[in-house]
Amino acid sequence: MSSHEPVVVVVDAETPGNVGTIARAMKNFGLSDLKLVDPPPLEPDGEAYGFAGHAREDVLPNAEEITFEEVVSTYHTVGCTAITGEDSRRHRRFPYTTPAELADSLGSVEAKTAIVFGREGRGLYNEEIEQLDQICSIPASDDYSVLNLGQAATIVLYELRELTVEETQLPDRDHERAEEADIERFYDYFAEFLDAQRYNERKREKTQRLMRRLIGRAHPTGREIHTLFGVLRQATDQLDHRRELLERYDEPDPFGDDSEDGSDKTEGDPET
Amino acid sequence: MSSHEPVVVVVDAETPGNVGTIARAMKNFGLSDLKLVDPPPLEPDGEAYGFAGHAREDVLPNAEEITFEEVVSTYHTVGCTAITGEDSRRHRRFPYTTPAELADSLGSVEAKTAIVFGREGRGLYNEEIEQLDQICSIPASDDYSVLNLGQAATIVLYELRELTVEETQLPDRDHERAEEADIERFYDYFAEFLDAQRYNERKREKTQRLMRRLIGRAHPTGREIHTLFGVLRQATDQLDHRRELLERYDEPDPFGDDSEDGSDKTEGDPET
Repeated sequence: MSSHEPVVVVVDAETPGNVGTIARAMKNFGLSDLKLVDPPPLEPDGEAYGFAGHAREDVLPNAEEITFEEVVSTYHTVGCTAITGEDSRRHRRFPYTTPAELADSLGSVEAKTAIVFGREGRGLYNEEIEQLDQICSIPASDDYSVLNLGQAATIVLYELRELTVEETQLPDRDHERAEEADIERFYDYFAEFLDAQRYNERKREKTQRLMRRLIGRAHPTGREIHTLFGVLRQATDQLDHRRELLERYDEPDPFGDDSEDGSDKTEGDPET
Repeated sequence: MSSHEPVVVVVDAETPGNVGTIARAMKNFGLSDLKLVDPPPLEPDGEAYGFAGHAREDVLPNAEEITFEEVVSTYHTVGCTAITGEDSRRHRRFPYTTPAELADSLGSVEAKTAIVFGREGRGLYNEEIEQLDQICSIPASDDYSVLNLGQAATIVLYELRELTVEETQLPDRDHERAEEADIERFYDYFAEFLDAQRYNERKREKTQRLMRRLIGRAHPTGREIHTLFGVLRQATDQLDHRRELLERYDEPDPFGDDSEDGSDKTEGDPET
C-alpha cells in the first residue's frame, strides 16, 4: 500500500481555499503527503484550514514546501491538466492518461510518484509540463472542460483510491445478497401465489419469467427476500381462505380463470 | 443522451459557494438541470456565482426552486450519502450503489432521474432518505469518509459523464497509436542497431524481448516511433561507418563481440 502512495504537489496555488480542499480530498482518499511549491500563506484561521475538514489536523499542518526542481529530480511525476495536445505533434501534452488509467498503471509499478497540480486559471505552464514524466487529463465536456483546481484534484485522488485507501467506510455487500436458495424459494412462493388466485394459465409462465428477471436484476438482500416471503405467504393464505369461503357458502366466484380477457368467463360457477 | 440526463437536486444547502461548485461540475460533465430545495440566497455578485465558473452563464441562473415532495413524486430519486446502513437491517440506507455502479445502472434504463444531495454537515435526513428510491455512496477512507458537499457532487457527476457528456475535450488516442507495422519495423531497426555494434550474441534475444515488452507497454504514437526510427538509423549508420573506418585503416577493434563482460577488451586504441 504505502509503497504506492503518491505525494500530492500543488504548484503556485493562489487560493488558500483550494489547498484546503485538496488536503481534505487527500484525507478522504487515504493520502497524507502534501508538498507545496510557492504556496500562498496558510493561516490557521484562514480559508485553507476552513476548507480542509479533518485534514486540518494532519495533512495540512504537515505539508512541506518544496521546489519544482526537487519534485522533478525526486519523483516519477504526473502533471494534471485539462489541456492536452491534439496529437503526437504536440508531444508536450500528448499522449495523456485519464485518472482511471493512471490508477491502473501506478498500481502495477512501485515508484515514488508525485501527482502535480498547477495554479488556478492557467494550470501548469508548458515549461513545467515538459519536465514531467506523464500527463493526466480528466475527460470532461468539450463545451467546458476546465475544472476548478480543487475539484480536479478531488477527482484524481478519488480515482487513485484503490491504491491508497486500505478500508472504505462502505460495508461489504457480498454477504448481504440473499442466499440463492432463498431467492429460488421466493419463486416457488410466487408460483403458489399465482395458483391461489387461479392466475391465467396462458400468461403464467411469462409472468414467472418476468418476475425472475426483475428480482435477478435487483440482487435482493436477505432481509428484502424474507420480507417478500412474508407478504406473499400471507396473501396466498388469504386467497386460499377466500376460496374456502366461496365453497362453504356456495358463493359464485366473480373472478374466473380467464378473468383478464373475459372471453372464457363462465358465470355462476362456484368451483372456479 | 438527453433522455438519460439526470437533474441535480440540492436540498437545503447552507453555503452558496457549494451551490456554485455543483453548478460548475454539472457544466464540466454535461448536465444542465439544477433544482434547489430551500436554497440560500444566490446573489449575482456572491460566492455561488464566484465558484460557478462558466456555469454562471446558464446552469446557475436557470436553476429552479422545487419542493422535496415534488422531487419525490416527479423523479426516480437517488440520494447521495456518505453514511450507509451496515446491513439490510438498516434498509433505509442499504443496499447502496457506488457512483460508478449508478452510472452503469442509469445507462441501461430510461427514467427521469434526480440525483439528490443533502445539506452540508448533516447530509440528507433519515426522513428524506426513506422517501428516495436508491442510495448512492462514494467509497472513501474509513478514517474520514465524509466529503465536502461540493466535492461529493463533483465525483458523482464525474462518474455520470458517460451518460451526459456527448464529446469530451480529449482528442481520440486510438488513431494516434503508431501503426503496428511501424512498431514492428522499429524492432527490425533495433535488431540492425544491435548488429551494427556486434552486440553480444548470448544476450541478444533477451535484449530484443525486453525492448518489445517495453515498447509494447508504452503504446508509442506514430510520431514517437518515427522519432525512434531516426535515432536508431542514424546511430546504426554511424556504427557501420566506424567499422568501415576500422577496416580501411586496419585498426584493431577495442570492442569485441563480448565487450560487455570486458574479457575481450584491448587497451590503447586511439581511434575510439
